[in-house]
Amino acid sequence: MISKNQIKIINSLQQKKYRKIHQQFFAEGKKVIQELLNSNFELIELFTTQESFPNVPKSQINTIFEADLKKISALVTPNESLAIFKIPNENKLKTDNGLTIALDDIRDPGNMGTIIRLADWFGVLQIVCSNETVDVYNPKVVQSTMGSLARVNVVYLNLNDYLKTCNLPVYGTLLEGENIYSEKLNRNAVVVLGNESNGISATIQELITQKITIPRFGTLQETESLNVATATAIVLSEFCRNN
Amino acid sequence: MISKNQIKIINSLQQKKYRKIHQQFFAEGKKVIQELLNSNFELIELFTTQESFPNVPKSQINTIFEADLKKISALVTPNESLAIFKIPNENKLKTDNGLTIALDDIRDPGNMGTIIRLADWFGVLQIVCSNETVDVYNPKVVQSTMGSLARVNVVYLNLNDYLKTCNLPVYGTLLEGENIYSEKLNRNAVVVLGNESNGISATIQELITQKITIPRFGTLQETESLNVATATAIVLSEFCRNN
Repeated sequence: MISKNQIKIINSLQQKKYRKIHQQFFAEGKKVIQELLNSNFELIELFTTQESFPNVPKSQINTIFEADLKKISALVTPNESLAIFKIPNENKLKTDNGLTIALDDIRDPGNMGTIIRLADWFGVLQIVCSNETVDVYNPKVVQSTMGSLARVNVVYLNLNDYLKTCNLPVYGTLLEGENIYSEKLNRNAVVVLGNESNGISATIQELITQKITIPRFGTLQETESLNVATATAIVLSEFCRNN
Repeated sequence: MISKNQIKIINSLQQKKYRKIHQQFFAEGKKVIQELLNSNFELIELFTTQESFPNVPKSQINTIFEADLKKISALVTPNESLAIFKIPNENKLKTDNGLTIALDDIRDPGNMGTIIRLADWFGVLQIVCSNETVDVYNPKVVQSTMGSLARVNVVYLNLNDYLKTCNLPVYGTLLEGENIYSEKLNRNAVVVLGNESNGISATIQELITQKITIPRFGTLQETESLNVATATAIVLSEFCRNN
């Protein structure tokens, strides 16, 4: 059973403002929920139409009708379960060891989720984000991380201040950079990825110490630039392949 | 001005069945439309609220109200212009020179569009698709190619028959393949990419002559596999970087 008021609150969690007020977010589908349960996220309540979660105390499981799941889901096709989690205390910077990804105003939730999933695949433990970057607890971000959210430390901060004081080489992909395929890449570093429309902002560009570029192989020069998520895939692959 | 009947026909073009009947598809936004105009696509009619297209004959431009554009657009936020193009005669296999991408039942329009855009960036001239792969003239595919559709030859065929007779090395990313970073990759080849949920199908797997794998660098073994579009980015990058 689910009350009207619960439906209202869960729907409100689609907005950052209400996530902040309630300090809660939600995830959908067994796979993503299970990954979050296996990590340090604190479950508040689990709504499900049929799936069994043997490791969740029965007091936290609420079996509901499909019609009710539809009312609380953010998906076009609801996926059997929806779980409410507590938003943990703000993540802190954990490490300056290894590669850190810095996001300069990434706005698309799908891109953000894909980047977190890539970070997880390539063993990047930390992502620092400008405060304008899309919220990591946005339902679309949570879903597209496919559970990787549980394994990557995502920190929001003043990116300008961070880059000024981090004492690490700061890489950024820019059109006039060095060919990424011939550069010796240092894995103890920060890699900055820019906004979907505007790329890396002017003030952040000034803090980049190593300009790199992914060369275009197509002979037709009209080719649109790469999408930020696919560019991230190529950059992380290059940083990892020789290390 | 736009008639009710025109609106009905344009809306129907969101479905493959009606695109086939009318032999038409549509594209939205100046950038994508301009790219298609610059290539061999034949314009049927251009609907616009304000943009100027100096190279389009006035007889083909139909200035409409924003409210009407909203009625024909497939976008949440319509983008000033929508153009109807003729679907060209079925593309033929053009070349067995260089790298060919083979798509084995890619279903997500966004992934398909991103793969076409990547192909364009890396100079891949041809993509062969199983007949079950999402239609390249699906509006979401057209939009996410960002115009690259104009520069890559996309052919639908019986993938099984094609791979059996193509006389080229056939690469496929499989979990138990050779490390892609240490393999010598032959650029005169076919690379097969598999379905989002099921990967490369069993019958197609039998036709793969070179099994490759993108190694996981994260130490946590639970990491979800890579999304097919980001895997494509890494694979194409590897094929091109040393060639």
